[in-house]
Amino acid sequence: MPQLRIALAQVDTTVGDLDGNADLVSAWTKRALAEGAHLVAFGELTLTGYPPEDLVLRRSYVAASRAALHRLARRLEDEGAGEIAVVVGYLDASPTPAPAVGRPAGEPQNTAAVLWRGEVVARYAKHHLPNYGVFDEFRYFVPGNDFPVLRLHGVDVALTICEDLWQAGGPVAVARAAGVGLLLCINGSPYEQGKSHHRDELCARRAVEAGAPIAYVNLVGGQDELIFDGDSLVADAAGQVIARAEVFTETLMVVDLDLPSGAEAGPDGLVTGPVDALDGTSMTVTRRELTTEPLPAFPARPPALAARPDPAAELYEALVTGTRDYVRKNGFRSVVLGLSGGIDSALVATIAVDALGAEAVHTVAMPSVHSSAGSVQDAADLAHRQGTRHEVIAIQPTVDAFHGALEGTGGLHGLAAENLQARVRGTLLMALSNEHGHLVLTTGNKSELATGFSTLYGDSAGGYAPIKDVSKTNVWALSRWRNAEAERRGATPPIPEIIITKPPSAELAPGQLDSDRLPDYGILDPVLDDYVSQDMGRAELVAAGHDPAVVDRVIRLVDLAEYKRRQNPPGPKVTSKAFGRDRRLPITSRWREKPTQ
Amino acid sequence: MPQLRIALAQVDTTVGDLDGNADLVSAWTKRALAEGAHLVAFGELTLTGYPPEDLVLRRSYVAASRAALHRLARRLEDEGAGEIAVVVGYLDASPTPAPAVGRPAGEPQNTAAVLWRGEVVARYAKHHLPNYGVFDEFRYFVPGNDFPVLRLHGVDVALTICEDLWQAGGPVAVARAAGVGLLLCINGSPYEQGKSHHRDELCARRAVEAGAPIAYVNLVGGQDELIFDGDSLVADAAGQVIARAEVFTETLMVVDLDLPSGAEAGPDGLVTGPVDALDGTSMTVTRRELTTEPLPAFPARPPALAARPDPAAELYEALVTGTRDYVRKNGFRSVVLGLSGGIDSALVATIAVDALGAEAVHTVAMPSVHSSAGSVQDAADLAHRQGTRHEVIAIQPTVDAFHGALEGTGGLHGLAAENLQARVRGTLLMALSNEHGHLVLTTGNKSELATGFSTLYGDSAGGYAPIKDVSKTNVWALSRWRNAEAERRGATPPIPEIIITKPPSAELAPGQLDSDRLPDYGILDPVLDDYVSQDMGRAELVAAGHDPAVVDRVIRLVDLAEYKRRQNPPGPKVTSKAFGRDRRLPITSRWREKPTQ
Repeated sequence: MPQLRIALAQVDTTVGDLDGNADLVSAWTKRALAEGAHLVAFGELTLTGYPPEDLVLRRSYVAASRAALHRLARRLEDEGAGEIAVVVGYLDASPTPAPAVGRPAGEPQNTAAVLWRGEVVARYAKHHLPNYGVFDEFRYFVPGNDFPVLRLHGVDVALTICEDLWQAGGPVAVARAAGVGLLLCINGSPYEQGKSHHRDELCARRAVEAGAPIAYVNLVGGQDELIFDGDSLVADAAGQVIARAEVFTETLMVVDLDLPSGAEAGPDGLVTGPVDALDGTSMTVTRRELTTEPLPAFPARPPALAARPDPAAELYEALVTGTRDYVRKNGFRSVVLGLSGGIDSALVATIAVDALGAEAVHTVAMPSVHSSAGSVQDAADLAHRQGTRHEVIAIQPTVDAFHGALEGTGGLHGLAAENLQARVRGTLLMALSNEHGHLVLTTGNKSELATGFSTLYGDSAGGYAPIKDVSKTNVWALSRWRNAEAERRGATPPIPEIIITKPPSAELAPGQLDSDRLPDYGILDPVLDDYVSQDMGRAELVAAGHDPAVVDRVIRLVDLAEYKRRQNPPGPKVTSKAFGRDRRLPITSRWREKPTQ
Repeated sequence: MPQLRIALAQVDTTVGDLDGNADLVSAWTKRALAEGAHLVAFGELTLTGYPPEDLVLRRSYVAASRAALHRLARRLEDEGAGEIAVVVGYLDASPTPAPAVGRPAGEPQNTAAVLWRGEVVARYAKHHLPNYGVFDEFRYFVPGNDFPVLRLHGVDVALTICEDLWQAGGPVAVARAAGVGLLLCINGSPYEQGKSHHRDELCARRAVEAGAPIAYVNLVGGQDELIFDGDSLVADAAGQVIARAEVFTETLMVVDLDLPSGAEAGPDGLVTGPVDALDGTSMTVTRRELTTEPLPAFPARPPALAARPDPAAELYEALVTGTRDYVRKNGFRSVVLGLSGGIDSALVATIAVDALGAEAVHTVAMPSVHSSAGSVQDAADLAHRQGTRHEVIAIQPTVDAFHGALEGTGGLHGLAAENLQARVRGTLLMALSNEHGHLVLTTGNKSELATGFSTLYGDSAGGYAPIKDVSKTNVWALSRWRNAEAERRGATPPIPEIIITKPPSAELAPGQLDSDRLPDYGILDPVLDDYVSQDMGRAELVAAGHDPAVVDRVIRLVDLAEYKRRQNPPGPKVTSKAFGRDRRLPITSRWREKPTQ
């Protein structure tokens, strides 16, 4: 059987950085070449970054992507990398435009190109377009129906893109009909807790359906709310995952494969032209020979199966990756956050230090008359353990000035007075940000965001929200895990134990505790998960065993907080439904899940 | 020819308010009955409100909509309205579900029902789904392929929904094939400056294609960022618009029509079953007779063609409608806003007074050391002319307290010091909002939002932004128009002339003018319109005659302000591209329209 050495380049692109992304492709192609690979594949829309959203609808962006691709092909040849086949995702436009109302302007296509000897020798446009969850690809792309097959060193290689595997029929079915020897799938598949196992199962199943191994390469790194975890893999034609890359890191996975010889012409010749894609469409198979002779036999290296991190490590790594990339890709070099002495800001500070290094993390304690001495001290202890640049700024004189200004209007009471304190803190952090160029990290968790237990323009003021998709229950779990991890390595636990064990309080009024206003987090979080992530209605929530009174209370809180959530900074999405582009509800709505409905 | 008196009920629904919306249908159906109508039609998704966004994906919401529809049918019969055919939009699920990856959960359909004698006698599911601009209907709905034709008093009546008219083929083509006598189209078509003329042209063209009159009924009123203008109309089979309703008001348009007799069976019988929809699909025609006999002849009333307001009046009305509905539908009874003495806050105050009445509008002047005496006085003059509840709160002691608190960190300078003043004002307004329950209106215009010429959590802090889609040029034009309108009616102009004529300034530093940091608005606004609304690239902008240096400066400002814009409150969309759900760009992006690209 012919052999091929393929390399899957799991790289971290930036949306819009066509030159920088091309540099990445060049650099990693040279590494693949140095490893002796015959083919190297990069992720979905590598050249433009993913997801580029409405930039796709700008003709100048599509034109720039096409131009960048052709420049890249020539550059690789010039750099001595013309003999390795390079598969790279980029943005193109349909070669057969048919403008109509409702078709995206310019008819962009989410495309994979094969670069070879200075030329673009094949282009494949994504056939199945996802339009659910975080994806809006009917808005952006027209689907492709061409199925190019390339003979490379005697092996017939074909291409697919991401959603092409998730839906039935399409290029996987056509790959089988065309007798393809290797199916490459380039992906921009965002991280979600537990998703990795779904990918395994999917790739294995589709490889069996295609009758060919699937080499699956994913992006890595953060882009706005999405985090790509990598998790690139190879499944053989029998449905066995034989190689896997490490997650959350840029890496090159090199795999040696024994592959069937290119399909011989049968009685009716090689399959070309229109083929039923078994999804209501037909795709057109074309063939091109790059090199027909198999390579001389070479000693194969055994494939590597990277171990998966345990769930807590994986989640923590995702948050660190999202935070690091958001800060870096937006041109910031430092962050600032308020340290209350509570668990949320403690965890965010720890993530920030792990992401950026302690010298880039500025922490500020902003005590009021309601802050306990313990809180100020615990914050200082944490800052000391981690080596952040720490300051203490008392807010009371400023709070008093506001009260003085508002005296003539009747003054502030209750919640209004509580919110004022949070807004003074938010204003102080923004002032430090504007003066010194730090990005403000907010410290709200998903349980707070869900129930509206936060102050608009107060604790939610800032540029990035590292734990906005992490429930309070998971905040504790991650903090414990991070401390245990430090101990395992013989280091000082970064988070003082007292911060983990003390009862949570916003400290905006005397003796206040979270439990005064919210159900216990052990009860609240499971209801939130079912209501928010699983989209259960009231009847389903009650049937799932939740206390009806708690359910009604939680539904009311969550529904009323929609506006407040929209004003929050972006943060890393790590669950099936974060409060971001994957959950889109009206602000103005009288719908409540009522007992009678 | 048989006659029918049809009524188009242009009503203002609320998303999620199934009971309230059903009450609306009942009340307006009784009015139609009192007018002697034989059929009354309501807008798209009248029962659930439009657009319900991800509520559609909750099964409990679909079930509640179906239940509400059947209750409504019985209720109308019980209320003596069983003999008038009622066409109403509601949310249903596909009767032939085929779950698959990528199909919306539960397979919702955007549906029109006909209620008659206590029953649902027909259901039509939207065939063409819009998935561009503000619309995401591939995310929410599965398309319908059934085409019911009802014989009502001898006339064959069929249904379409909104996008069904905008795209070629589909139900319009099938209507012609089936020989329909009247095509009803129920709509949720949002307002846009100048769109009304497109609707005319479209309805006229489709009526000719269908070979039947089209009765077009639209929603009216605000829902989050969208404003529905109504603009219901009837186009006859020759393509003549013969009746039109007033815009921005709930109204019942009653039109008497002479219509062809129901199609006679030809040699092959009446057309039923699958028909080529000329769009790559086929639709299935079904027929049902409600009443076969034409009505006794009655004297027809002449149809009314409401005059369209001039462009400034129409735009102003849109802003008033959006503001009134957002405040009311979110349960607020009063608003508060800062009055700087400048034109933006002056216009917003005037819109608020027109929308809610002066007693519901609280205005606050918050001078600093940089505020001119004129500004404070001009604000007071405006408040006096309009009768708002006006307060003056000096901010300097609070600003000083912040400076004192930050002294140890090196203090604040330049932009950081400017932003601080805006944030103190934002915090004061939010405090008044929290204490007294007013909704905070922000006063930023589109030119500012586009260029990032505002302070995050400062002047952009609040709940609703009435002029966020109105350029500075239009802010002046609307202010002048509103004053002239007052004079025309013999009233005092609401906005002091000096506010309109003085050079714009943020007054955050000594002697500051907008023109220090931005191109003159007369130059800036046309570039913004082409870059933002028309999505032109740099080369196109230059080709359109804009100064290349200005183009580069504007592109840079606009691209950098994406994050800031996202943190702004919603506001009424009045152009083809507002900064809202119709323009979706990444925050993290290195893409710039460069001279070389």
